Amino acid sequence: MSFTIQNILIPSDRAYEMVDVQIVDDHIAAVAPNLDPIGTLIDGRNKLLLPGFVNAHTHSSEMWQRGMIPPVPLELWIAELYDFTPLDPEKAYLSAIGTAVETLLSGGTSVVDHLVLIPGQELETIEAAVRAYRQVGIRAFVAPLIQDQALSTGLPSGGANREHDEYVRSTAATLALVQEAVTHYHRPDEGVNILVAPTGIQLCSDALFEGCVELSDRYHLCRHAHLLETKAQQILAQEKYGCSAVEHLKQIGFLGDRTSLAHCVWLDDADIEIMAATKSTVVHNPLSNLRLGSGIAPVLKYRQAGVNVSFGCDGSASNDSQDLLEAIKIGSILHNTTDPDYQNWITPRHAIEMASLGGATGLNLGDQLGSLTVGKKADLIMVDLMNLSLLPRTDPIGLLILGRPVNAISHVWVNGRAVVSDNEVCNVNVDELRQSLFDQSQWNPKRQAPSVAQMELHYRSVMGLSAKPLGYS
Amino acid sequence: MSFTIQNILIPSDRAYEMVDVQIVDDHIAAVAPNLDPIGTLIDGRNKLLLPGFVNAHTHSSEMWQRGMIPPVPLELWIAELYDFTPLDPEKAYLSAIGTAVETLLSGGTSVVDHLVLIPGQELETIEAAVRAYRQVGIRAFVAPLIQDQALSTGLPSGGANREHDEYVRSTAATLALVQEAVTHYHRPDEGVNILVAPTGIQLCSDALFEGCVELSDRYHLCRHAHLLETKAQQILAQEKYGCSAVEHLKQIGFLGDRTSLAHCVWLDDADIEIMAATKSTVVHNPLSNLRLGSGIAPVLKYRQAGVNVSFGCDGSASNDSQDLLEAIKIGSILHNTTDPDYQNWITPRHAIEMASLGGATGLNLGDQLGSLTVGKKADLIMVDLMNLSLLPRTDPIGLLILGRPVNAISHVWVNGRAVVSDNEVCNVNVDELRQSLFDQSQWNPKRQAPSVAQMELHYRSVMGLSAKPLGYS
Repeated sequence: MSFTIQNILIPSDRAYEMVDVQIVDDHIAAVAPNLDPIGTLIDGRNKLLLPGFVNAHTHSSEMWQRGMIPPVPLELWIAELYDFTPLDPEKAYLSAIGTAVETLLSGGTSVVDHLVLIPGQELETIEAAVRAYRQVGIRAFVAPLIQDQALSTGLPSGGANREHDEYVRSTAATLALVQEAVTHYHRPDEGVNILVAPTGIQLCSDALFEGCVELSDRYHLCRHAHLLETKAQQILAQEKYGCSAVEHLKQIGFLGDRTSLAHCVWLDDADIEIMAATKSTVVHNPLSNLRLGSGIAPVLKYRQAGVNVSFGCDGSASNDSQDLLEAIKIGSILHNTTDPDYQNWITPRHAIEMASLGGATGLNLGDQLGSLTVGKKADLIMVDLMNLSLLPRTDPIGLLILGRPVNAISHVWVNGRAVVSDNEVCNVNVDELRQSLFDQSQWNPKRQAPSVAQMELHYRSVMGLSAKPLGYS
Repeated sequence: MSFTIQNILIPSDRAYEMVDVQIVDDHIAAVAPNLDPIGTLIDGRNKLLLPGFVNAHTHSSEMWQRGMIPPVPLELWIAELYDFTPLDPEKAYLSAIGTAVETLLSGGTSVVDHLVLIPGQELETIEAAVRAYRQVGIRAFVAPLIQDQALSTGLPSGGANREHDEYVRSTAATLALVQEAVTHYHRPDEGVNILVAPTGIQLCSDALFEGCVELSDRYHLCRHAHLLETKAQQILAQEKYGCSAVEHLKQIGFLGDRTSLAHCVWLDDADIEIMAATKSTVVHNPLSNLRLGSGIAPVLKYRQAGVNVSFGCDGSASNDSQDLLEAIKIGSILHNTTDPDYQNWITPRHAIEMASLGGATGLNLGDQLGSLTVGKKADLIMVDLMNLSLLPRTDPIGLLILGRPVNAISHVWVNGRAVVSDNEVCNVNVDELRQSLFDQSQWNPKRQAPSVAQMELHYRSVMGLSAKPLGYS
């Protein structure tokens, strides 16, 4: 399959140029004005072509709880999340479809799904997500979310003597599960990748991290985890290791150029140096960091230290959407309040590069994805510059990043294959998707949050908040 | 004209109820289950009805520069804005149409347009905006932006002896202009209001403020201004008055329950007490505050002090959109990072009330607008809960505020009149609007920024930044 996009704007050094772009099979074959047309011809007039973005951290099945959990910090939010009835694989399939669709329509060609596994149906959950992503045609990085410690261990003790339940699955069984997922589903050439993805230091033993490193080395897998999302986790790391979480992860060999770490809100300057030295990637999730009150990640410092930064939407229960353009906009402008010197601020062009090449680099694919370079994979998005939300005409990238585009992504290709065409998702019947999501849900469901009630008093105490609990549920 | 919306969800105390809503002429006549249908019947199934929101601060003509100005602080941004070729009234008309359309489609039924006046064509600018808003049918609060000091006076001197040009128009002539606008265009019963709207302490004399107060009292006009958007303005106020800007505005009588003040980022606790005591309203513009690096307004403190807070998009050159739902979402969740106690955080229901009743209160219309109360004006929005971005079903208000709704506002009524119906704007041909905006603009226009070059070295010096200038233009 070959095609030629004719007369399309692409960004050049500090301006734009109009070119033709030839795609042959899965890759970009030529980018220049007035090319000989090959294959199908696509009219690029009044459009902008960009490398596709990476939704570099999400949890697809949280879509079933979006809009539902009140504004509370991560530690209480997650207790509430865990109290919901477990899903079934069919629901996991639908939410993966929904996540892929929203990601595509907001410019994402790749998704990193830190996938919450249904207890007892772990491989079925992974199968459902892989099936969804293959159907939609998005490039998928499925990162089965694993832990080997019970939820209550995720809070600092504050010196209190707390007892914790055993986690339901052993470390060895958990690692065996990941290995099985790799055997069954890891097919990089087909656009489906499995990652090793311990949830983070708050719920994982060193043995689990080290087992993941071993699997990662053996099968050339990328590594993914949450890192220091909240102040409570910073306190917990000191209790647990007597050093920072970053220092500890370095010591046990988890960091590196195949490692991407979601959030990274509570790192200090020494931690940032370690991130740079190990070539680890920060996945910035600005919206969930605000929604959960986690804080503002020191993204300008990361950039100045040479740390690669990409963007994620995070799961829909903590954002609560999968609009990648929203994450890119807020994840850019938010940091202008953290440094009075505007010469350090993220420009719209920086943001595009972080979302595309930064995302690819975090998945160790910077040589194959993330720019309009001849020879790279054709993961491309086309922006309709006649869209009302991008008018009047000024700077196309400024409008796309600093504005609020609505239905502005008209075409998306992944690996040279059309997955969005004329603003329509090619491989999903969206009306049927809507009906399925509607049928399997209800408005204002009665929430049960016994775990929150259990954790709230301890949380308030250890975080130095006054004793009166919220009393919601 | 009467109509009945049948079987529609509305928020009740902590949940939702399904009701019928009767509208007679311009007001809500009844809200209850199973009402006798009167007039046209509208199917409310799978929809949510809310009071319309107020876009409580914008500058419509900035739409011509959206996406264009790089990320720099207000004081340099505004110098660049002023360097653009002045518009003509026909362009001002188009950008007011565009601003109204984007506001309606994101849930706004009222817009406060702090309208930049074309030099020499001031009344024609106001006429163009009023004509646009009457055509679209949005409730309009046109606030002609006035000043009587030259742009360069808006920077603190930092002790330097700086000379300033005279402003092009005298204080008396400026006040006469506002009076003329009131005579010609102030028609509250027809949904068009003129406000007195000095731009702010940075560019206005006491005489101008006092003249505005006098006009406001004589004609019962609301008052509007920018207030302490940046740290530079806080420094300037001390230089100019020897006290805080808020204290000074109180002394000259500008504050009160008809006064709304945009931004309010740099107020201290004493200032906040004055805002509460005078019943003045804060208009929170979170996106421009981030984009310009102005800071994070202390909105949770305002709420705790009992200060009324509403939301604005701000002008499209500093946001760069007029999506009110985006401003409401970010303006809610942003503050979770400013207070570790989540019991103080803004919930989605708070946000709805701030955007509707808070907006109305800031325009001294809290008794007529802003809630689904029998007898109030029928400024209403209907949300399509079958929209993909609001599925699966959970908490409708949580989905609307914390999600990223796309084309989710299906119907809008202002004063009982339909202005959006089945997701289409009733009184504007949007395709023609797009073509007009397209025809009168160009991509990547060459920008001239001589004023920025003049101001940048002084700005960096007085703000304590290193001497190396950005050198863009």
